[in-house]
Amino acid sequence: MEALKSIALLDSGVGGLTVVKEIFKQLPEERIVYFGDTARMPYGPRPHEEVRKFAMQIIDFLQTQDIKLVIVACNSASAAGLPYYQENVKYPVVGVIEPGIRAALSHTTTKKVGVIGTEGTINSGAYEECIRSLDPAVEIFSLACPLFVLIVENNLIGAKETRKVAEEYLRPLKEAGVDALILGCTHYPLMAEVIQEVMGPEVRLISSAEETAREAREILNDRKLLNPSSDNSCHHRFFVSASPENFVEIGETLINMKVKAYQVILPAI
Amino acid sequence: MEALKSIALLDSGVGGLTVVKEIFKQLPEERIVYFGDTARMPYGPRPHEEVRKFAMQIIDFLQTQDIKLVIVACNSASAAGLPYYQENVKYPVVGVIEPGIRAALSHTTTKKVGVIGTEGTINSGAYEECIRSLDPAVEIFSLACPLFVLIVENNLIGAKETRKVAEEYLRPLKEAGVDALILGCTHYPLMAEVIQEVMGPEVRLISSAEETAREAREILNDRKLLNPSSDNSCHHRFFVSASPENFVEIGETLINMKVKAYQVILPAI
Repeated sequence: MEALKSIALLDSGVGGLTVVKEIFKQLPEERIVYFGDTARMPYGPRPHEEVRKFAMQIIDFLQTQDIKLVIVACNSASAAGLPYYQENVKYPVVGVIEPGIRAALSHTTTKKVGVIGTEGTINSGAYEECIRSLDPAVEIFSLACPLFVLIVENNLIGAKETRKVAEEYLRPLKEAGVDALILGCTHYPLMAEVIQEVMGPEVRLISSAEETAREAREILNDRKLLNPSSDNSCHHRFFVSASPENFVEIGETLINMKVKAYQVILPAI
Repeated sequence: MEALKSIALLDSGVGGLTVVKEIFKQLPEERIVYFGDTARMPYGPRPHEEVRKFAMQIIDFLQTQDIKLVIVACNSASAAGLPYYQENVKYPVVGVIEPGIRAALSHTTTKKVGVIGTEGTINSGAYEECIRSLDPAVEIFSLACPLFVLIVENNLIGAKETRKVAEEYLRPLKEAGVDALILGCTHYPLMAEVIQEVMGPEVRLISSAEETAREAREILNDRKLLNPSSDNSCHHRFFVSASPENFVEIGETLINMKVKAYQVILPAI
């Protein structure tokens, strides 16, 4: 009597659901189990070591859920220690930084690429390092937008002050003339509309979700781990570390399905 | 890529682990997922309707865990609505009352059977009704021992006041001359030693765990749902609704394995 294994995803909150949405699109036959660490978000301002510990603690939990692949659907957590997770987890672990970069490099013609993310992601230098290794000719303009995560998690995307905040943050990138802007935080695609308005139609916004889902599919395909069946809607599982109301509200709008989320208390570390 | 399905068990706290222990003995190839509702225990003093709602809420959660059978490893919850769960859950649901009774009836020669349980279980009349339907000649002496669950959950089994409490509770049953005593609460096997001392060696203590595990095995066997493989120790999952420390301490002693329990917050109903 067997059950299908799941793809595990983790994020500090709802941001990783942008990757879930893409998984549902590209891999409708797969089941997912998601953990949003809403009690400890935002991850951006936290030291890398702490974020790494949080992520490993969540991966430990997710490993109780019959999984076959882990997607660190959070740029801050990816920047804080993707190689560390890959060394310490017995399943393949995929981050969201490199997939987004690959997508950006395939789009830019001016070779001027913008990157926005949390303080933790931007300060890690992970984007610069990876972009330089793939194409040293690209000019990188990176910028931390710490308020964006809070705006998304608190359902303030449509508020008028959000537009002002976006204009203020993004002005230097607009002036720099980037033609591709990497949304280097899985929360940002949720505010893509306002970011696009501020940057103008000529700038291509790059979300890592599509490329990340593609990478997950490739790994599962190579290892012959793709699911055969196709009705999994009742098998997806969502866990959060704080009260689930806000997560459920945002999640249901985003992925357009009924979301039942359970609150799991993670012990202090 | 498939995973083995699990047997789900629920109880108000650690009591159902006595059933888990027996499952591990009789069905070592099976995986279990356990929920101890430690935030809302004891169930004994609560109205049946409330206990039924709690149990259904927990079964809803357990149904996210790729299960194949539910054991309501709690006499109070079994007494409060086993037929209700069986009607509303898509998997087979096993209670702990009838299995214990069958074991007792096979042991008694005097036809005087004692039953101890929580107030909820005893007041439900579930034991009397079931025993009468199986053997109308049996004389039943039933008794509520509300403190026992609290003694077990608070790790006070070895305390000297526990012996006094047991003597006080059990005197009427001892005087009645029962030769079989049903431990009608899954917590009670944890204090079998003191109960046996008080009742004397001639009285047979009946735990429903062994019979319940046997019933689970029969159902799984009939439906061809038994697991083939045999190494599952890392696949067992334990969830509790309050802080897990106490549960882990008692659980590890009882089932003699490392227990990692996660706290899941269940919303108020």
